[in-house]
Amino acid sequence: MIRFVVIGHRATTSGDFKLDDITGGAGRLDVLIRCINSSFFLSHDIRRDVELYLVLQGPPFAPKTIRLVGSELRYLNPDERSTAALIRNALMQKVESEINSTPGIYVSNRSYRDVLSLLSKEGKLIYLNEDGDDIVEFDFPDDPVFVLSDDRDLTEEEEEMLLKYEPDAISLGPISYHADHCITIVNNMLDRTYRLH
Amino acid sequence: MIRFVVIGHRATTSGDFKLDDITGGAGRLDVLIRCINSSFFLSHDIRRDVELYLVLQGPPFAPKTIRLVGSELRYLNPDERSTAALIRNALMQKVESEINSTPGIYVSNRSYRDVLSLLSKEGKLIYLNEDGDDIVEFDFPDDPVFVLSDDRDLTEEEEEMLLKYEPDAISLGPISYHADHCITIVNNMLDRTYRLH
Repeated sequence: MIRFVVIGHRATTSGDFKLDDITGGAGRLDVLIRCINSSFFLSHDIRRDVELYLVLQGPPFAPKTIRLVGSELRYLNPDERSTAALIRNALMQKVESEINSTPGIYVSNRSYRDVLSLLSKEGKLIYLNEDGDDIVEFDFPDDPVFVLSDDRDLTEEEEEMLLKYEPDAISLGPISYHADHCITIVNNMLDRTYRLH
Repeated sequence: MIRFVVIGHRATTSGDFKLDDITGGAGRLDVLIRCINSSFFLSHDIRRDVELYLVLQGPPFAPKTIRLVGSELRYLNPDERSTAALIRNALMQKVESEINSTPGIYVSNRSYRDVLSLLSKEGKLIYLNEDGDDIVEFDFPDDPVFVLSDDRDLTEEEEEMLLKYEPDAISLGPISYHADHCITIVNNMLDRTYRLH
């Protein structure tokens, strides 16, 4: 399994937002929506070997984590608006333990700390970082877990929490990219190497 | 200069569409909108060395070509809805020769044939094709012009028109991707090689 974790530092944790305003009103939820697109979409298929964790840290009910499971997803279209509607649906659920909102989409009250703790047992954490090893030469571990941030960097505390797990660090090139573009590049590299084995 | 050409086979050529319906009502304009995002956006910057040609072939006024110039672009945000509003603005203009609608965005009545003819004089055409040379080992020519299609393949006629220019052919890997993902991968490879020189 290939896993991506993306932190939405101010992404809304309520379903009470307008589909016309997923950038401002929903705390840059648009960034996370685009990460859904780049995690799962192939030309005429969905990547069934991917799981995506969106960690929402905005008001009013933070933290919440939305988990998308490629092998179970339905009703997912590539445009931002329809994907935002699925996420809104998830955020409208009352959550105690993790629950399923629509096929392949789950919502819980997990925090970033909870997600790291959970996934460190499932695979090897990988930090995308300009000082890391070049992805072109990187030998992917089994069950890689890529940790990314939205349009803001990880806070010092978040970075410290991640470094405790001694993650691998990889670089995607000489320039800094949007999170969804990072996921596209990582998926392409996995197609060339990891997924061929 | 790095240029991308994307054909929108049924993308609307009228500004009379709703921002809430850029997928259906606007003939999968959403595909082209995402190509704008992946052509230009860096983490906190715009790629100034890129020019993007969107060739719209849908009703009612086909053909139209929207040209976006990285070094001149303003008011461009990464979300689909606000980008669609800029394109709608361009499509509302009455066009005889090419005109400027907002900073960095131009609209004309150019056809796919016109665009190929024009750009073949500006640089080397490159066809993204699964049978092409692997992009990782590809030696990019000066002023590359990458030709892509929306969610539909090039028609036979469109492919023939392109092949007359004896384009280079490159492959991005073993799987077929969405057009915007292709552009992200190409831009990343250009960052690693071509743009470093």
